[in-house]
Amino acid sequence: MPRITSVEVIDVRFPTSMTQDGSDAMNKDGDHSAAYVVLHTDDPELAGYGFTFTIGRGNDLCVAAAVQRAEPLVGRDVDALCGDLGAIYRELQSDSQLRWLGPDKGVIHLALAAVMNAVWDLAARRAGVPLWRLLTDMSPEQLVAAADLRYLTDVLTPEQAVTLLARQEPGRKQRIEDLEASGYPCYTTSAGWLGYSDAKLRRLCEEAVAAGYKHVKLKVGAKLADDIRRCGIAREVLGPDGHLMIDANQVWDVPEAIEWVKALAEFEPLWIEEPTSPDDILGHAAIRKAVAPIGVATGEHGMNRVLFKQMFQAGAIDYCQLDAARLGSVNEVLAVYLLAAWFDVPVCPHAGGVGLCELVQHLAIFDYLAVSGSLERRVTEYVDHLHEHFVDPCVIRNGAYVLPSAPGYSAEMHRESLESYRFPDGAYWASRAEVDPLT
Amino acid sequence: MPRITSVEVIDVRFPTSMTQDGSDAMNKDGDHSAAYVVLHTDDPELAGYGFTFTIGRGNDLCVAAAVQRAEPLVGRDVDALCGDLGAIYRELQSDSQLRWLGPDKGVIHLALAAVMNAVWDLAARRAGVPLWRLLTDMSPEQLVAAADLRYLTDVLTPEQAVTLLARQEPGRKQRIEDLEASGYPCYTTSAGWLGYSDAKLRRLCEEAVAAGYKHVKLKVGAKLADDIRRCGIAREVLGPDGHLMIDANQVWDVPEAIEWVKALAEFEPLWIEEPTSPDDILGHAAIRKAVAPIGVATGEHGMNRVLFKQMFQAGAIDYCQLDAARLGSVNEVLAVYLLAAWFDVPVCPHAGGVGLCELVQHLAIFDYLAVSGSLERRVTEYVDHLHEHFVDPCVIRNGAYVLPSAPGYSAEMHRESLESYRFPDGAYWASRAEVDPLT
Repeated sequence: MPRITSVEVIDVRFPTSMTQDGSDAMNKDGDHSAAYVVLHTDDPELAGYGFTFTIGRGNDLCVAAAVQRAEPLVGRDVDALCGDLGAIYRELQSDSQLRWLGPDKGVIHLALAAVMNAVWDLAARRAGVPLWRLLTDMSPEQLVAAADLRYLTDVLTPEQAVTLLARQEPGRKQRIEDLEASGYPCYTTSAGWLGYSDAKLRRLCEEAVAAGYKHVKLKVGAKLADDIRRCGIAREVLGPDGHLMIDANQVWDVPEAIEWVKALAEFEPLWIEEPTSPDDILGHAAIRKAVAPIGVATGEHGMNRVLFKQMFQAGAIDYCQLDAARLGSVNEVLAVYLLAAWFDVPVCPHAGGVGLCELVQHLAIFDYLAVSGSLERRVTEYVDHLHEHFVDPCVIRNGAYVLPSAPGYSAEMHRESLESYRFPDGAYWASRAEVDPLT
Repeated sequence: MPRITSVEVIDVRFPTSMTQDGSDAMNKDGDHSAAYVVLHTDDPELAGYGFTFTIGRGNDLCVAAAVQRAEPLVGRDVDALCGDLGAIYRELQSDSQLRWLGPDKGVIHLALAAVMNAVWDLAARRAGVPLWRLLTDMSPEQLVAAADLRYLTDVLTPEQAVTLLARQEPGRKQRIEDLEASGYPCYTTSAGWLGYSDAKLRRLCEEAVAAGYKHVKLKVGAKLADDIRRCGIAREVLGPDGHLMIDANQVWDVPEAIEWVKALAEFEPLWIEEPTSPDDILGHAAIRKAVAPIGVATGEHGMNRVLFKQMFQAGAIDYCQLDAARLGSVNEVLAVYLLAAWFDVPVCPHAGGVGLCELVQHLAIFDYLAVSGSLERRVTEYVDHLHEHFVDPCVIRNGAYVLPSAPGYSAEMHRESLESYRFPDGAYWASRAEVDPLT
């Protein structure tokens, strides 16, 4: 009966701002970072790993919050904990003093995600299966008991959620075989960062098409003339049948969003992503109405399930891009997948950053096997950065995620990466501080 | 030409959980706390004071975030800073790495509020006037330039906001005289905390009525039978003409809120406050429709202006209870007051906590003088706690806030209070730790 003996939380930052990887109209100089949690147990072979993703400054706030969030876990029996993953989530979430700082949003919620992601990783490792398999093997009743349905029952009751999940039990074996053969379809954002030159953009689009991708995403929203030129290049490389997505990273007010997107309509984008404030449900609904048939997508900054509930109620989005490290871990992600299926909106998870691809592959696979049962209009983001730091990195073949097979949530990072990029005292940052004391 | 020389941020916590002052259905054991900011200048007579309010654990996160938020202020010329309060707000707000942790919500936004509240306090002190006077003396164009209207222009353009403000210039002198004579009306929550006995509740209601209050607020939502009995006591003391408000502090899902409030309808509450998640715009709209003519009020956890915009668009609330230390200081508060006036929704600010009464009196007075021009259906919260720690505490006379006259935003705390209640090493906490090492 292993117990959790200690919690280690590490501030890990990668200097991505130096190459403009990840640059967009809102975020010009992010250093992709993680508040990384390790739940140590008295079994030296067993630990749980999790994280939330940030882009640099303030990662220390998430680390400090995760330390507080994780405190009640120390001393707990691993099997008791993993036997009721809804109970431990609710216990950590309901700390009323920390709740005041949200509720369910911002730093304290990112920290809850980091800690509970580690708990889910631990549960899957303890069961000896990848997370997608752990979830798929749970009964509808067990899944609904783990899901955070608070504040959602006006739209979806626990009973309705059970019915929805039970609907997908037939045919699951066949769907697993399908995914084992073809993988889960993904698209690439690696081509389209705003800081890249036209030549680099064209080359990366060509490489993406050659690698089997049918979708390519570009960052837009800084200068309209640039966007027109860049969308033209991408559409030319993709041909008429490829899918072009555009992403504004929240730079516009609603009227400007409508105007700008209409000016790019000739390139037939599949969706406009994050056209305005991620909090603006009614704004997204207005934009969607105005720019149809171009779809509206958002969710990487979708703070919690209550926001997504309203996005669905208001008919505000065509694609739900939930984030596995911003929502309160699998417990809240489950709730959003259930809502999305209930409203028949496809979920195309946000990925990239540090390790988000590693996490969301499990979620997308689980959705196909147990929640929506569909691949239609569904494609999961993939960004080709920083996977080398993960012990069980995601694998892409022919534009699709290969089913992960190692036990856990694929969240563990190499110890050498942690030592090197721990901020501010890891080897990389210490040596950079010698060169540039202002870093 | 004074300059800002350093920023001091202090973790101040008062042990209110020991007396259940402030207890409600969601927050059973809050220690009312402040992340308190001092902007020191090279003029020993001049400093700026501000804070955000929390209820205990996690106040340290706000302190750490405020240190990062305030960093760009050091070395700045005070007059240049105060000459364009919109520019410095936007500069601090737009730090893209910190923005990722919100945007505009949770710990980083609370910290922005603390820092920018101190900047506004500094500006009023430098001008030698109380904050309400500083705001009232600004032109419509200056106010709109300071207001954070980003993401709001689909509903309210800067030009419309200028017109709205210009409308209230006539009659201002008379309105100032009115307030000087009668003060700004308030109501008291001190009577109705959930942890109080029936006898204490009755006594405090009687004292409130005797002191000239026409409104009394009770906490509800733990047990319906208790709520029925407590509302009966309060209504009996108030008589048929007094106003009873009830406050559930977010404990219900939407269907439960509707059912519970209807069960209390016989006591004719003026409003139900925080019936459900503060993020649920469409949920509040549904509750409002179902429980009319009982009004719906929310806002103390209203995270930002985009949320309030939608609350107004959706017709979700009868009363807007913005919070001066949760919104991003006066810059964002201004935007919400403008929106509220545009949609003709009265603002009844949230207060209590640590020093919120000191802040909101300035805002309510300014609203009457320059934005809405009306006192109708407007009443500002007042809680009789912790004012002794403030250098210029608010003063209540006949159920109304007396106009503050000292320069600033009334945000400065006594140095002795800070030394005593600084967490964890102030005199109070250090001595308590000796008695109870688990504190």
